[in-house]
Amino acid sequence: MKGIHSNNNLEESTCKLQDEICIPDSNFPRVIIIGGGFAGLALVEKLKHKEIQVVLFDKNNFHQFQPLLYQVATSALETGSIVFPFRKQFNGYKNIVFRLAEVMEIKPSLNTVVTSKGKVNYDYLVLATGTTTNFFGMESVEQNSLGMKDIRDSLNIRHLMLQNLEQAAITCDDKERNALTNFVIVGGGPAGVEMAGALAEFCKYILPKDYPEYPSSIMNIYLIEAIDKLLSTMSDKASSKTLKYLENLNVKVLLNEAVIDYDGLQVSTKSGKTILAKNLIWTAGVKGHFPKGIDEKHVVKGNRIKTDAYLKVEGHKNIFAIGDIAAVINEETPVGHPQVAQTAIQQGKYLGNAILKIIKNESLIPFKYKDKGSLATVGKRRAVADLGKFKFAGYFAWLLWSLVHLMSISGFKNKLMVGFNWAVSYFTYEKSNRLIIRNFKNKKVNTKSNV
Amino acid sequence: MKGIHSNNNLEESTCKLQDEICIPDSNFPRVIIIGGGFAGLALVEKLKHKEIQVVLFDKNNFHQFQPLLYQVATSALETGSIVFPFRKQFNGYKNIVFRLAEVMEIKPSLNTVVTSKGKVNYDYLVLATGTTTNFFGMESVEQNSLGMKDIRDSLNIRHLMLQNLEQAAITCDDKERNALTNFVIVGGGPAGVEMAGALAEFCKYILPKDYPEYPSSIMNIYLIEAIDKLLSTMSDKASSKTLKYLENLNVKVLLNEAVIDYDGLQVSTKSGKTILAKNLIWTAGVKGHFPKGIDEKHVVKGNRIKTDAYLKVEGHKNIFAIGDIAAVINEETPVGHPQVAQTAIQQGKYLGNAILKIIKNESLIPFKYKDKGSLATVGKRRAVADLGKFKFAGYFAWLLWSLVHLMSISGFKNKLMVGFNWAVSYFTYEKSNRLIIRNFKNKKVNTKSNV
Repeated sequence: MKGIHSNNNLEESTCKLQDEICIPDSNFPRVIIIGGGFAGLALVEKLKHKEIQVVLFDKNNFHQFQPLLYQVATSALETGSIVFPFRKQFNGYKNIVFRLAEVMEIKPSLNTVVTSKGKVNYDYLVLATGTTTNFFGMESVEQNSLGMKDIRDSLNIRHLMLQNLEQAAITCDDKERNALTNFVIVGGGPAGVEMAGALAEFCKYILPKDYPEYPSSIMNIYLIEAIDKLLSTMSDKASSKTLKYLENLNVKVLLNEAVIDYDGLQVSTKSGKTILAKNLIWTAGVKGHFPKGIDEKHVVKGNRIKTDAYLKVEGHKNIFAIGDIAAVINEETPVGHPQVAQTAIQQGKYLGNAILKIIKNESLIPFKYKDKGSLATVGKRRAVADLGKFKFAGYFAWLLWSLVHLMSISGFKNKLMVGFNWAVSYFTYEKSNRLIIRNFKNKKVNTKSNV
Repeated sequence: MKGIHSNNNLEESTCKLQDEICIPDSNFPRVIIIGGGFAGLALVEKLKHKEIQVVLFDKNNFHQFQPLLYQVATSALETGSIVFPFRKQFNGYKNIVFRLAEVMEIKPSLNTVVTSKGKVNYDYLVLATGTTTNFFGMESVEQNSLGMKDIRDSLNIRHLMLQNLEQAAITCDDKERNALTNFVIVGGGPAGVEMAGALAEFCKYILPKDYPEYPSSIMNIYLIEAIDKLLSTMSDKASSKTLKYLENLNVKVLLNEAVIDYDGLQVSTKSGKTILAKNLIWTAGVKGHFPKGIDEKHVVKGNRIKTDAYLKVEGHKNIFAIGDIAAVINEETPVGHPQVAQTAIQQGKYLGNAILKIIKNESLIPFKYKDKGSLATVGKRRAVADLGKFKFAGYFAWLLWSLVHLMSISGFKNKLMVGFNWAVSYFTYEKSNRLIIRNFKNKKVNTKSNV
């Protein structure tokens, strides 16, 4: 221990005996955060410059702005515009340590996490690991379709789509060409709706110019939703407007319908329909995703971790959960809060203050979620908004959507880049990042090489 | 055959029997171009809107601006800023057909090329396949080091570098940390010099902010050149200025030195030195790269294809070579022209005019190379320029370098993006694309998955 002003310099420190990863000496209590999504990052921001050593573990070296993943998938934005390096974010935060590693297991009795790079001890542990795509046990679908939960998923979709369009230009087989140019999107939530809208615009504005070989009508876009409305968490007005917008863009919306099988070529639905499509994008569900070591009795529906009103995992004194992974279950919120960015950010901020109070032995007030409303967009100039009593749709909702998203992106340069790309796209309908940098082969190969 | 105004619509055409890839019917003679680098693209531009069917094959769906690969490698620019989709470039070019496929073999006697997607016939064939990294038979070096010849190489370097810097923060072993943060660049040509300069700036401006854990002096950059000067094709003034610039940036330049072995950790040199480094970037040589089927007697030093003064491959009536792959050997140019972008562009333009004349049975004048001078940059505000009799260095040379490169990049949006990134970087020294999107593992895994 070299004292609290060691300035994080590894030259002056040695690894603590009990840690297998080099972390600078500090006399402050150590908070380990697993995951730097909206929740984790909001927590880091609250704890910066405080008398706490924060160690953030993430398997990526960057924060992702998930709401715009679909724009990377459809070549509208470049990767770098919606992801942001943690180390850049943390410039000058002397009490924040970032370590690129995956946390494999938690050992609460030892106050230790086991990472892909070695063990580390904590005083307080925060799970902010988020969710992953839920295929509800359908192996054929999982094997042959693509989720859209992180930047790699987005790049996979982009590569698959562009490769299939190139192959469609090469093949002499009409049936194969149709399958290569058909897209099925499963799930009528915001991700599915926004993806369908963006694809429909690609089809309308880019396809005729880039692929004059075949008419734009060759590309069919299907959106499949299990219940009788799109955007089910929003108002009826938002749902019906969204349906109208999508149908105007020639998206074939199938409500009360579900996918039951997919072999990579033929999509089979519950009602007995079949669609030939080599592109299936799955946005129909998520499930919590966290390391081993949390007792199953604390895990609730959707694989979320049950917490008390202070975001503390039940049965533990010093383990917390925030964001999509956390289910704050009580009388007011019998199924927890909605799994959206707003919840995650509010929980991250709350927990930052709470930890500071816990350390000072001060009393806590319970977490309270404030619903700031919902927005979703369906291509250019069309969006729906539910802001409390105000429910509206159209151009103004789209402007609001654009503004809210632009202001939420980390980093001034990213704001500028996204704003610039949107401005260019607004006037030209251009999506210029349609680059096949690597071959997308199949999911198995892909998952293995961790691309 | 549907006539010459078939508008490339595949609906109205069927694949020609002799082709295994779908290519629209046309009554025009067919020119197949293999490779869309500087030479191939210049040729396409000359042949657009002419009474010729041009089929461009490339294994990528984009043109790459190779002179700025090192800026992608060092996180200064994003991929999308220096690569440009062919199909976007070709919007409205009705006689140009792009097909994403790798050409594996040429069968001159049948006027056929064999691609990864099937066979296609040609009336005229143009090889514009460029060069690949030459490791001069040193297998250990090839296995463990990275070249810098295309965008995937650049991304490999970026990922390797960022992963090694992260691992250096994690390891408790001082020797390993040094090896992870040491960089060896082999080859003192423009690529090596510019890479060394960019890395030195990363080390000076980014490292202290992003990795406060260790002092910037931990990162050592070595530049190894086999002869007694850097930038040997430029003037002595340019060489000595470049050496001075690099040494001022703390790059350790080793002249008259060569790498003879590298096991992934230890670099061994001819003079008996050893350097511990997990990062070795090889820019010391290139060799021509082309499909099977060209008689060995036409292949000269550097694996280039010997052509006559009209860029025609000797022994063939309808096969041409342009760009880095072409060696126009005669009394005036005993070893061919320099393998630079200027040569490629001039040859592409020349051949476009030549093919139009050949089809009309007009006589040709021989290709003549016009040397427009050389520029190289060593980090910000420092560059060297040889423009005929004018040889200068410093700020003005750097401004000129920036301007020339900016104007040469394809696409208005890319010019704006690069210009914007450079402007931000000029004032902030920021390189914001330091993202590890995939794990860089090792070359073998990597080549296989074609990432």
